[in-house]
Amino acid sequence: MAAAAGGAAAAAAAEGRPLPGPPGGRPRPVCSRPYFVVLMVFAHLYVLNVLGLLLFVHLSAGDGDPHPPPATPGRGPSPAGPAAALPRREGIKVGHEQRLELVPGRAHAMRTLSLKPLLFEIPDFLTEEECKLIIHLAQLKGLQKSQILPTEDYEEALEMIEISQMDIFNLLDHNQDGQLQLKEVLTHTRLGSGRWMTPESVREMYAAVKADPDGNGVLSLEEFKQLNIRDFHKYMGSRTVKMSELVRNSQHTWLYQGEGAHHVMRAIRQRVMRLTRLPPEIVEHSEPLQVVRYDQGGHYHAHMDSGPVFPETACSHTKLVANESAPFETSCRYVTVLFYLNNVTGGGETVFPIADNRTYEEMSLIQNDVDLRDTRKNCDKGNLRVKPRQGTAVFWYNYLSDGEGWVGELDEYALHGGCLVTQGTKWVANNWINVDPNRRRQLQFQQEMARYTGEDVDAGAGEGAAGQSERAVDTPDSDKHAEL
Amino acid sequence: MAAAAGGAAAAAAAEGRPLPGPPGGRPRPVCSRPYFVVLMVFAHLYVLNVLGLLLFVHLSAGDGDPHPPPATPGRGPSPAGPAAALPRREGIKVGHEQRLELVPGRAHAMRTLSLKPLLFEIPDFLTEEECKLIIHLAQLKGLQKSQILPTEDYEEALEMIEISQMDIFNLLDHNQDGQLQLKEVLTHTRLGSGRWMTPESVREMYAAVKADPDGNGVLSLEEFKQLNIRDFHKYMGSRTVKMSELVRNSQHTWLYQGEGAHHVMRAIRQRVMRLTRLPPEIVEHSEPLQVVRYDQGGHYHAHMDSGPVFPETACSHTKLVANESAPFETSCRYVTVLFYLNNVTGGGETVFPIADNRTYEEMSLIQNDVDLRDTRKNCDKGNLRVKPRQGTAVFWYNYLSDGEGWVGELDEYALHGGCLVTQGTKWVANNWINVDPNRRRQLQFQQEMARYTGEDVDAGAGEGAAGQSERAVDTPDSDKHAEL
Repeated sequence: MAAAAGGAAAAAAAEGRPLPGPPGGRPRPVCSRPYFVVLMVFAHLYVLNVLGLLLFVHLSAGDGDPHPPPATPGRGPSPAGPAAALPRREGIKVGHEQRLELVPGRAHAMRTLSLKPLLFEIPDFLTEEECKLIIHLAQLKGLQKSQILPTEDYEEALEMIEISQMDIFNLLDHNQDGQLQLKEVLTHTRLGSGRWMTPESVREMYAAVKADPDGNGVLSLEEFKQLNIRDFHKYMGSRTVKMSELVRNSQHTWLYQGEGAHHVMRAIRQRVMRLTRLPPEIVEHSEPLQVVRYDQGGHYHAHMDSGPVFPETACSHTKLVANESAPFETSCRYVTVLFYLNNVTGGGETVFPIADNRTYEEMSLIQNDVDLRDTRKNCDKGNLRVKPRQGTAVFWYNYLSDGEGWVGELDEYALHGGCLVTQGTKWVANNWINVDPNRRRQLQFQQEMARYTGEDVDAGAGEGAAGQSERAVDTPDSDKHAEL
Repeated sequence: MAAAAGGAAAAAAAEGRPLPGPPGGRPRPVCSRPYFVVLMVFAHLYVLNVLGLLLFVHLSAGDGDPHPPPATPGRGPSPAGPAAALPRREGIKVGHEQRLELVPGRAHAMRTLSLKPLLFEIPDFLTEEECKLIIHLAQLKGLQKSQILPTEDYEEALEMIEISQMDIFNLLDHNQDGQLQLKEVLTHTRLGSGRWMTPESVREMYAAVKADPDGNGVLSLEEFKQLNIRDFHKYMGSRTVKMSELVRNSQHTWLYQGEGAHHVMRAIRQRVMRLTRLPPEIVEHSEPLQVVRYDQGGHYHAHMDSGPVFPETACSHTKLVANESAPFETSCRYVTVLFYLNNVTGGGETVFPIADNRTYEEMSLIQNDVDLRDTRKNCDKGNLRVKPRQGTAVFWYNYLSDGEGWVGELDEYALHGGCLVTQGTKWVANNWINVDPNRRRQLQFQQEMARYTGEDVDAGAGEGAAGQSERAVDTPDSDKHAEL
């Protein structure tokens, strides 16, 4: 089962404007114009081409309820009975340590690293031999670039777009002041369509196409109206993009962990069950293990492992079974378990730039040309950095609880990235546990999977069952649910 | 049952140096000299008299384990079986709202105000009539000053002290730089022995006794050595202290809520049980309702409702039953439920200066002469302010969970105060739920109380059962567990 890495597959991105947190006082209602925007974007388009290329849906532009009920599409009495509750580990406080028995006769310590997101570190989760074996298996299978450069395919999509330049402007103008500040452009990482945008690269591009005559880095509505999108295309096409300029600069592959897999892969899956205390039927039907290699100079700018959930959102893992058509899709990774497979000579920390911040505001991630998400430049300014150490696992929840034992809203504080590897190579692996925030749909999926594996158990042996190879296709997160 | 307010009763204060939080990175071990100090202080002594008067115990001054096991005195297999677990409400995230059924047929909304501390607001928890009745009952009973000025009694205690000036200096010199910064003095609110110390008042005093010849607000070891403690006494004795200069400027009384109490008082207790989901046997044996009146100009500087728990600490509510001698005592208020009984014309907010801060450091509460704990001056700089609104309840946990269904460490983020009432009068009431962090002792207490009330149910009728009048004696929190 080879991972079809990259490609110009259409991916859906959903964006809900985050609610400003309490601004130094008690929580107050949203003050800025309450609207939320959902975008569908074709992946892998050049910077600011997207301004012309975006195929997007401008939903609920009215001033209605600014808090649409999140993550509860179709919730209600399940026709097939309730799915088991999802227990969550308790964090207690930063630095809290608890003892775990993950392997008979061996004690592990789990230390709370942050509460927002709920994040833990477990040293020696894997043995040195297990780490080496995983690397070996991954090398045998072969790794592919985690992100490839845009192809020319998007030219076709271009014709399909019907959106006015004015609409694009309003979409980008977050604070509605009639101007596009640099950070309003940078926040929409999708605009870069795989290429990471920095204040410098955007200024460079403005200069090249004469988009910002007064050179202040801000596009007024007038300046924006006079833009010719074709000029952007030409400029972008003429530039050679280096790997280091991408959102993600690594190689990866997927390793099967289901029934019949290598006994070490099985053992790790079992250990992850005990670690997370999540039901076996959920863990067993989650994504295979992703093994990632960052060479010297590699990085992964800060991103979310999963996307926000709207009533219109489908989860990749349940969508086939649910047989519902949905305009947006995300991978619904409730939990991330990240393993460090080697000791990195220099750099390569995992950064959580805003962990345990008092409040979250998307726009405050970029201040005075300092983009906290930039893991090549600003890892040192992040709130929390985890140093890679062979065998250590970190694990966190990408979603909050809904207060009723199920998955709630996306936890925006779970933003994280891989810092620049300054020396040597970095090997990590990811186990994602997929849960549909729609409890009924998750249950339906589990029932189907049980029926499927019951009918044809052997199909699960070998490199991958059909249901999993489907999910193992490489659709990097940043393509699926980054903003815009 | 009259509240014996104030008085020079000996009170115990315990201080453990807080662990520095992650300083912009992953959590790291304590870097400053690891020691912790426990102090016994006689209450109500004048400012800096205490430097000479402190009767203190300098425990574990060695460089041993900087993290003594907290809150687990005598934990272990209980001889009488485990006490029921203590459920905690889920906060999910700031702004999260959940529906409660506290009164049959009526829905209440509970909104999360912060996660550190875990804090909720419930509008219309009490009806207007209930609020009025509580105020009426309190007025009938009569209120007393929450804090009275120091008496001359301490002069006797003075003779008993055996502590060198050098020891005092080391005790106060938090950062161990050989100098006493203003904030190192201010942090020890006990030094003020009821009088609130401000940068100005300390400077004034330094000037009066010529303690700081170079006038830089910092006492060097040399300057400190040349001090004559008697001069402080004289200075303090000569000053008239106004109510507004105290830690707490209010009046209060206690209302019985046990069996046989006014039906509204009973109803409120029942409602508090449903709100907190804590076991009835715990809520029923907690402190009576404290009703507080702040007149115009009233305030309560930021404080903790309960104290840190060390192996040597006893809880006020269980100490008689446990029959153990303990050098330190605190009130073990697991939960605070605070009711606003009227709408305040001006000011009077409840401030949580550091709610949801990323990290906690005691010393960062005072920066550049801005003391975040000062509710007369700096309420506007606090993280979270709750505006009084008749009938609204706020409730929070003063302790973290221990991860095993019981009370864990003190939650330092629960620091809170009552802002200056700038216009009108402010009426509030407090329900504290007392739980011993020592599970065995709590269970023993409950069994004794059950036996007691079983033998003599009628003793519970009227103004207060013996066991409660004991606890209802006014021992303001600030006297019991503020630092030093």
